[in-house]
Amino acid sequence: MSPWKAAQPGDPVSAIDTPALVLDLDAFERNLQRMADALRGSKVRLRAHAKSHKCPEIALRQVALGAIGICCQKVGEAAVFVDAGIADVLVTNQVMGETKLRRLAPLARRARIGVLVDHPLQVRALSVAATAHQVTLDTYVEVNVGADRCGVAPGEDAVQLARQIAASPGLRFAGLQCYQGPAQHLRAPQARRDAIASACEAARMTARAIEACGIAVERITGAGTGTFVHERDSGVFNEIQAGSYVFLDRDYGDNQRGEGDVGFEHALFVRTTVISRATAGRAIVDAGLKASSVDSGLPTLWGRPDLRYVKAADEHGVLATPDAAAVSIGDTLLLVPGHCDPTVNLYDDLVCVRGGLVEALWPIAARGALL
Amino acid sequence: MSPWKAAQPGDPVSAIDTPALVLDLDAFERNLQRMADALRGSKVRLRAHAKSHKCPEIALRQVALGAIGICCQKVGEAAVFVDAGIADVLVTNQVMGETKLRRLAPLARRARIGVLVDHPLQVRALSVAATAHQVTLDTYVEVNVGADRCGVAPGEDAVQLARQIAASPGLRFAGLQCYQGPAQHLRAPQARRDAIASACEAARMTARAIEACGIAVERITGAGTGTFVHERDSGVFNEIQAGSYVFLDRDYGDNQRGEGDVGFEHALFVRTTVISRATAGRAIVDAGLKASSVDSGLPTLWGRPDLRYVKAADEHGVLATPDAAAVSIGDTLLLVPGHCDPTVNLYDDLVCVRGGLVEALWPIAARGALL
Repeated sequence: MSPWKAAQPGDPVSAIDTPALVLDLDAFERNLQRMADALRGSKVRLRAHAKSHKCPEIALRQVALGAIGICCQKVGEAAVFVDAGIADVLVTNQVMGETKLRRLAPLARRARIGVLVDHPLQVRALSVAATAHQVTLDTYVEVNVGADRCGVAPGEDAVQLARQIAASPGLRFAGLQCYQGPAQHLRAPQARRDAIASACEAARMTARAIEACGIAVERITGAGTGTFVHERDSGVFNEIQAGSYVFLDRDYGDNQRGEGDVGFEHALFVRTTVISRATAGRAIVDAGLKASSVDSGLPTLWGRPDLRYVKAADEHGVLATPDAAAVSIGDTLLLVPGHCDPTVNLYDDLVCVRGGLVEALWPIAARGALL
Repeated sequence: MSPWKAAQPGDPVSAIDTPALVLDLDAFERNLQRMADALRGSKVRLRAHAKSHKCPEIALRQVALGAIGICCQKVGEAAVFVDAGIADVLVTNQVMGETKLRRLAPLARRARIGVLVDHPLQVRALSVAATAHQVTLDTYVEVNVGADRCGVAPGEDAVQLARQIAASPGLRFAGLQCYQGPAQHLRAPQARRDAIASACEAARMTARAIEACGIAVERITGAGTGTFVHERDSGVFNEIQAGSYVFLDRDYGDNQRGEGDVGFEHALFVRTTVISRATAGRAIVDAGLKASSVDSGLPTLWGRPDLRYVKAADEHGVLATPDAAAVSIGDTLLLVPGHCDPTVNLYDDLVCVRGGLVEALWPIAARGALL
């Protein structure tokens, strides 16, 4: 890991070493509040997706503002958040292998732990692990509602798995995971609305079929930052798994806003320094693809519409500049990452700033928790 | 960081938890030897690029096989490798800012430390830092030989910087950095050869112009895994900065081989598990873009030409499968990462395997060393 921190609490913002991952606390807190406001009065709770931030300090603030708990993708992430005192953690993933199950099951002594299945073998293995550790695991059937990733087809396959779970020692059938991932990034509001309408219909139909067997479907969980207003208003979902809303990124910012959308704002930035200015039309910054993940496209420059980030190498970013006077060597700039989740995963700390000062460093405690 | 390790020394390979970054030690050692063989008898030394592996265990083996030392991109990386006992470390980058210089300069008491410049202000700041810390910094002029990133134009601009360095207290003009990055990945052998011929001509002309001023150009350093045979044979370069050769990745593997190319082999893999098989034509693995960087394209499946990795989400990879029998839930597979450098940067350890057993875990000590 880095032998040094980018800053210390109390430092002026100008003293932050670069590249650094900077959280604008005012914007971040407004985003937290906007989500709480958006869900107030509905019967829908936030289950904040902690894969986005991997940061217990943020999860605790989400719970303080009403989140039922968190979800995450990995058993290792779940362990970090249980250790931090989060009482309800759902691993929104299939957990395969004895090693992972041996680590997952004991967490259920300290928190309510949920996990997904989309195959009978997973149910059997979970039941063995849960009974061996004398715990109960909330078990959700993942239904493919259009994402075409994990998940059984809506309807009968899901009913069979729900029956199997209900009959398995150590497991409690907790409901359905119905996440439509690609819909989050459809640019047109109507396309997002249509995709979620279809997902809701599949979820509703599946839940009814399971309940027709006398098995209660307590929770229907899913949604993300791009579409959650539709799941919220569906009458089907009762949990929302938004994560990116705390930060927003360039990719989510590229979504066209629809009626009723909640206006989150960019709160996460990569602070970077211009290290080379050898040519008038080009500036080189010290934040490349190891500082801002490019999987969802390049970052943009914050507050500098005259500059474009046009190419990323490992530790260099190439900016196209209108003229020689646009930026000088040694200048610092802020990037809006293309995709917040994998960008956060590149750092050990969030440098939290407010009013021109570094207020805190928050450890990204689940950074690299791949297992 | 991950609360657990993926394996322990002595474990059978089958017990490695996933996703894990696996180094095939036999293939890795053959790659090290191939590079040593390729440079034997030439006047060219390897300055192994440690940004690829960020791993002192590997750097020490490279030096044992003849490398003059290492290069890296960040001051934080340099600190890790100096701590590990590497005696000659070149930061192949412009180092901007007082904080960074205050950390760089003291390293020169424990190792030979080099750094690049492409602007007079950098020379001045380096000289101030070097004299303040009573050290001498090897200072290289970076010349743009076709990469269009950092670096002054060949010729007069480089001469002026070399003069300034030679006249600056605390600095020693050490030579020229002439790295043609994009040429590494040109697919056609002739295109790589032509690009390096042009780079060599620019380097040669610039060196002659500097020497005409009575300033010796001790080192001309650059090259990478894709082109180093040309720089080796150029009569211009005397250092080779290859890094990826120790691992090879999918992107380098896609280069067409030319006459005289050294045949490195894939030694780095992401071990992954099939976690979902809900549809006959699709399998989901537990290695997504947080386990294998997709900046240079998707990974491929090792030894499984019947399977294609077609989509990466944060923690999921989607494989297209020919039929339901192709893979089963729980199967483990090996991925060849698209780009080794940023993939290594996602992990804390290399799981080193040989003969079906885990032989060692090597810390990726400079992981995340962005400063």
